[in-house]
Amino acid sequence: MLTVNAYAAPSATEPLVKTTIERRDLGPNDVLIEIAYSGICHSDIHTVRGDWGPQQYPLTVGHEIVGTVTEVGSDVTLHQVGDRVGVGCMVNSCRECENCLAGQQQYCLKGNTGTYASVDRDGTITQGGYSTHVVVVEDFVLRVPESIPFEKAAPLLCAGITTYSPLSHWNAGPGKRVAVVGLGGLGHMAVKIAHAMGAEVTVLSQTLSKKDDGLKLGADHYYATKDEATFRDLKNSFDLIINTVSAVIDLDAYLSLLALDGTMVNVGAPGQALPLHVFTLFGNRRSFAGSGIGSIGETQEMLDFCAEHGIAPETELISADYINEAYERVLNSDVRYRFVIDASTFA
Amino acid sequence: MLTVNAYAAPSATEPLVKTTIERRDLGPNDVLIEIAYSGICHSDIHTVRGDWGPQQYPLTVGHEIVGTVTEVGSDVTLHQVGDRVGVGCMVNSCRECENCLAGQQQYCLKGNTGTYASVDRDGTITQGGYSTHVVVVEDFVLRVPESIPFEKAAPLLCAGITTYSPLSHWNAGPGKRVAVVGLGGLGHMAVKIAHAMGAEVTVLSQTLSKKDDGLKLGADHYYATKDEATFRDLKNSFDLIINTVSAVIDLDAYLSLLALDGTMVNVGAPGQALPLHVFTLFGNRRSFAGSGIGSIGETQEMLDFCAEHGIAPETELISADYINEAYERVLNSDVRYRFVIDASTFA
Repeated sequence: MLTVNAYAAPSATEPLVKTTIERRDLGPNDVLIEIAYSGICHSDIHTVRGDWGPQQYPLTVGHEIVGTVTEVGSDVTLHQVGDRVGVGCMVNSCRECENCLAGQQQYCLKGNTGTYASVDRDGTITQGGYSTHVVVVEDFVLRVPESIPFEKAAPLLCAGITTYSPLSHWNAGPGKRVAVVGLGGLGHMAVKIAHAMGAEVTVLSQTLSKKDDGLKLGADHYYATKDEATFRDLKNSFDLIINTVSAVIDLDAYLSLLALDGTMVNVGAPGQALPLHVFTLFGNRRSFAGSGIGSIGETQEMLDFCAEHGIAPETELISADYINEAYERVLNSDVRYRFVIDASTFA
Repeated sequence: MLTVNAYAAPSATEPLVKTTIERRDLGPNDVLIEIAYSGICHSDIHTVRGDWGPQQYPLTVGHEIVGTVTEVGSDVTLHQVGDRVGVGCMVNSCRECENCLAGQQQYCLKGNTGTYASVDRDGTITQGGYSTHVVVVEDFVLRVPESIPFEKAAPLLCAGITTYSPLSHWNAGPGKRVAVVGLGGLGHMAVKIAHAMGAEVTVLSQTLSKKDDGLKLGADHYYATKDEATFRDLKNSFDLIINTVSAVIDLDAYLSLLALDGTMVNVGAPGQALPLHVFTLFGNRRSFAGSGIGSIGETQEMLDFCAEHGIAPETELISADYINEAYERVLNSDVRYRFVIDASTFA
């Protein structure tokens, strides 16, 4: 066992504190990663605070991880010591179900093993990336291309893949009219990626306060959803809507914006049930879908795509001792657009 | 103007009665059809009774029409006197919008002209097929292949196309696991068509009372939705679910039955909003969609498909004076599976 420095939540209601956690000894297929940077995702906050169900504490979260390989197990072939690598939201899956066999580990029918707060194969609870080191089985470790600035790469492992996957799956590209709802951590990546794919990109945000940013990030159009004219003017206009907002929205209003055979994909999910009129789906043969992160293969594809197109998140680099303050700012949407923790400050 | 015999509802609350209605004089692109058979669709009842909004009375409904061309306008090229033809749920569209130009007239952005209870180009209210004759513009008239028994062909124009279209659009075929929810007028056609397309077909009905019928119609499996084990045993099992039921159902329960990238398509629509948990869509990247009838091109394709595969609805032939009783039986799900009116009895 390796004892490593980390930040952990002692309970659902206390601030995160500096501590140590255990990492398993390297198995034959494991790699040991010295973490360089760790992103802060809204899900981290939901999880440590018990919003998505009770947890075992102390708990270390973080599933946007980049670092350098410092040791490899005896059978590892995919990575070498010194490689720049990344770990996202999952660290394993059953490898046997229909979805795993189809290479879609994120939809593992037995539930993939989350990077934190999941039951691992050895029965322990997985601990995330707010830490100096992590041990992960080699085929859930991604290669981070050299051309992506290391201190900006971490958020690609969740915010990047979560938006890339539906944009790719539903064929965003030239001639496609894509709307992105919400311009936060996920939304700003969706804009960059959809623009790089060649789509015509529209941001739908509550107000126009981030309009200049949105256009700089690659949006062609920007509308305020608080303005009722938006829903009238944009009716039947989009082939694909990526909804990054977890708040309760008027589904019928947003779905009405879809053109023929258009799909609205939620990557944010409110806990409550949302009401939906089926008649809204009849018009234009509309679809409402969900998408969760992406497969390992697709995550690598996304990293390579971002490298090729020079895409990286907009980040604010912080020290570990700023995490609790950063959480409050995330909850207040006061970050443009992702906090990244310098992992050397966990030490 | 032509005065022709018909059955009409004098108001939302009175039974249909024998009467006469006017048909327009033939324009250069119109055909006059002597109606042979007219199907009874549940929508007819909803419409005449004002369930979907107030109507102008007297109103003649009916949008499952087959008959013989008896006269053609001067510029008609698609049909000749003596042709066996059909008319479905729409008799025109704007012909100019993005969807009409894409050949998807059913999704006309200005609203297609319904076969009944719609405002026609001349400002009159369209009157449907419970009548001896109808005048329709030639390109909204379908060819009915000789091999389809005429007295069974009428329901194909609504029940047939409404189920064929989503089955075709979402690629039902060999290797695809298709569930059909509800075994009524639409459901029994969905089973026949999906089976003919080569899919593995499962019926999900409230009880097993129609199980023998379902298997005879082509279903491979049949489950009762009143049995809770059904939802447990069939989790993650279907690539496509066609929901023909207009009643309020537990969307999350049905959506959970979808496998990776599966879609549930509603062709029935309850008036109320249905609650839906977005988390249900995250699993397996599920989609929930709507589909309304089908295009004119696709309707012809469906008729040709049915002819090729020897598919026809199960029908009960009635006289016009039985319509009101038939309505009550439809409302009680007491028909296997579609009433067809002998149009000679309108005279």
